[in-house]
Amino acid sequence: MSFLHRTIESIKPLNQDYFDLATQRLDNLTKPKGSLGKLEEFAKRVVAITENTKPNLDKKTVFVLVGDHGVVEEGVSAYPKEVTREMIYNFLRGGAGINAISRHAGVDVCVVDIGVDWYFEIEDVDGLIKRKINMGTKNFTKEPAMTPGEAVRCIEVGIELAKDAVERGYNFIAVGDMGIGNTTSSSAVMCSLTGLNPEEIVGCGTGIDMEAWKHKVEVVKNALAIHDPDSDFPVEVLSKVGGFEIGGIAGVILGGASKRVPVVVDGFASTAAATVAIGLCPNAKEYIFFSHRSAEGGHGLVLKKLGVEPMLDLDMRLGEGTGAVLGMFIIEAGVKAYNEMAIFEEAGVSKRRNKLEK
Amino acid sequence: MSFLHRTIESIKPLNQDYFDLATQRLDNLTKPKGSLGKLEEFAKRVVAITENTKPNLDKKTVFVLVGDHGVVEEGVSAYPKEVTREMIYNFLRGGAGINAISRHAGVDVCVVDIGVDWYFEIEDVDGLIKRKINMGTKNFTKEPAMTPGEAVRCIEVGIELAKDAVERGYNFIAVGDMGIGNTTSSSAVMCSLTGLNPEEIVGCGTGIDMEAWKHKVEVVKNALAIHDPDSDFPVEVLSKVGGFEIGGIAGVILGGASKRVPVVVDGFASTAAATVAIGLCPNAKEYIFFSHRSAEGGHGLVLKKLGVEPMLDLDMRLGEGTGAVLGMFIIEAGVKAYNEMAIFEEAGVSKRRNKLEK
Repeated sequence: MSFLHRTIESIKPLNQDYFDLATQRLDNLTKPKGSLGKLEEFAKRVVAITENTKPNLDKKTVFVLVGDHGVVEEGVSAYPKEVTREMIYNFLRGGAGINAISRHAGVDVCVVDIGVDWYFEIEDVDGLIKRKINMGTKNFTKEPAMTPGEAVRCIEVGIELAKDAVERGYNFIAVGDMGIGNTTSSSAVMCSLTGLNPEEIVGCGTGIDMEAWKHKVEVVKNALAIHDPDSDFPVEVLSKVGGFEIGGIAGVILGGASKRVPVVVDGFASTAAATVAIGLCPNAKEYIFFSHRSAEGGHGLVLKKLGVEPMLDLDMRLGEGTGAVLGMFIIEAGVKAYNEMAIFEEAGVSKRRNKLEK
Repeated sequence: MSFLHRTIESIKPLNQDYFDLATQRLDNLTKPKGSLGKLEEFAKRVVAITENTKPNLDKKTVFVLVGDHGVVEEGVSAYPKEVTREMIYNFLRGGAGINAISRHAGVDVCVVDIGVDWYFEIEDVDGLIKRKINMGTKNFTKEPAMTPGEAVRCIEVGIELAKDAVERGYNFIAVGDMGIGNTTSSSAVMCSLTGLNPEEIVGCGTGIDMEAWKHKVEVVKNALAIHDPDSDFPVEVLSKVGGFEIGGIAGVILGGASKRVPVVVDGFASTAAATVAIGLCPNAKEYIFFSHRSAEGGHGLVLKKLGVEPMLDLDMRLGEGTGAVLGMFIIEAGVKAYNEMAIFEEAGVSKRRNKLEK
C-alpha cells in the first residue's frame, strides 16, 4: 500500500463519545445552554478530533503552498506569472497579508515552494521549505497539468509537511495558497468534483474584467471537455486540471487528519484542495474547519455543495491562508471558553429555575 | 450645557479625507485591490475615527456593565435575579465566558456595577468599578424603570468610564452587559426606538419556553402601552423601560466617540444601548463597530433597521461582550494588515498588467 493510501486508511470517523463528553462539560459552564453558539460546536469537534477532553491549540502554523500554472499563458490572470515568485520573497520578508495577520494571531507562517517556475538561490532560509515537484504545471488547455505520478507526489509532500509539523509540536494547522493562475485551476477542479458549472464557479481572481472572465470560463470549459476527468478519481482530476499547491494542500489536510490535528481551510484554492481530500477520503471532512466564504466566484456554492457552513463572511479573496488564520482565532476562542470557564457549582452561580425547565 | 450635551456636541462626523488617505495606502499594498474585503473597510474607518494614518489598537478593554431589573418579578427570565450578582463574583474570579475570550484576545475586562441590587462588600477589587445608580430598576410594568435624572446619570457614568479609560491609555473599547431580565428591557427600548414590534424583537433570553415567551411579549407590549415613551427622546425611553447597564453602555459609546476611539458593540442589550446612543447623537454611529448578529430574538432585524452589517454570525447569545471581543480581533487584523503590509514598489512585486486594467 502506498504512503498516500496508508494515510487515507488511517483517518477514522470521529467518535461520538467525545462529543457527548464535551457537551456534558459545556452544559455545566456558567452560561445559558448553547449560548456560545458555534464556538461550542467548534470546541466539541476539537475534543472529538483530538480525542482529548482538555485540548490545546496553542501551537499554530499556516502552510502557504506556492505553485505556478501553465494555463497563465492563456491570459486568465490580471497579474503576470512572475508575481508568484516575487510573492515568495515578500512572504519571507514578512510583508504579505498572511504575515501581518499571522503575527497578529500568533501563527507561524511556513512557505512551501511545491512547484514555482523559478530556482530560489537561497539556502536554508527560515520559513521557506523547498519541495518543488516541477517548474509549474503544464498549460492544461493543451496537455494534462501534471503526470499522475506528480499528482500523487504533491499530495504526499503535503502529508509529509503536516506530519513533520505535528512532530515539531504543532497542534493546529491552517492551509493557504499562492500561485498566479490558480483560481482557473481551482475552478476546473471544483467543477469536476462537484458537478457545478464553470459559469457558476469561475470568478474574477485577482481582478479581471468581464471580457476576460468570459474567456476564463471558456478556458475551464474547454479543459474539462478535452480531458474529461473522472470525478470518482480525484488524483486524475488533479493531474489533468489541478495545480501542485492544490495537491499539496489536499495532502496537508490528510496528513493533519491522520495525526488527529484540526485543519483550517482558507478560501477558493484551499477549498478546491479540500474537495480533492474529501474525494479521496470522506472521513477527512470532519477534521476540516472551513474558515470563510470567499468573495471569489462561486466559492459559497461549493461550500453549500459540500454541506458546510463557513464561520466568517468578510468578502475576502486574497488567499494565502488569511481567512484560515482568522478562523483559527475563533476556533481557539471556543476551545478556551470550554477549557477555562467555571462550572455552576464551583462558581456559586444559581442554575435555571425548575418551573421554567423545558 | 450638561456634561451629556457637551459630550454629544463634541462628536463630529468623520472626515472623508482620512478614508481617501487610507484607501491610497491600501491600494498600494501587495495584494489585489480590495481583496481583504471588510478588513479594508475596518482599517479605513479606524483611520478616519482616530484621524491617524498609522492607528494603533493595541490597548484594549471591554466594559461589562451590570445591572438588575425590577421587571424580573414578572417571570420573564429562566434564571433567578441572584444570578446577576453571582456573575459579578464569577467575572472577578475570571471564570465567565468574557474572561476566557478576553484573555485569548488580549483584552482587559472591566466590570462595572451600575445598578446591581446588592451591596458588594469588597473594597478596591481589581477589575470591579462601583458606580451604582440604584439597587436595580423598578418593575416597568408598574412604574418607570428609573427617574429621568437617573437615566441621564447612567449615561454620564458610561461617558466617564470611556474617558477615564482613554486617559489610562486604552485606544480600543468594547462593551458588554450582564443583568438578569435585560433582554426584556432591551426589547422594549429597541421596539420604542426602531418602531419594530415586540413579536419581532423579543427572544427567549437565557432559555424560556414558548409560553413564557408569549408572556414576555405581553409584558413588553403592556409596558410600551402604559408609558408610551416618545421615541424622539431616548432618555425618556431609557427612563421608562430601560436599564442602568443599557444607559451605561450608551454612555461608553458616546464617551469613546467623543475621544475618537472606536467602540465595538456586542449583541442584544448592547445594540439596545447603541440605538439610545445613536438616537441622542446620530454622528456617533460611524464610531461604532457592530460585532455580531446575536441569536437572540430579532437582533438581526434591529441591525438591518440601523443599516449596519455585523462582522460575525456565530449564533452566540451570551452577552457580556463576548462577541464584541471577537470582533476586536478581526478589526485589529485589518488595521495591522493596513499598517504592516509591504507596498508593491518596496517589495519588488509586479503590479497588474495594463491591458487588463479595468
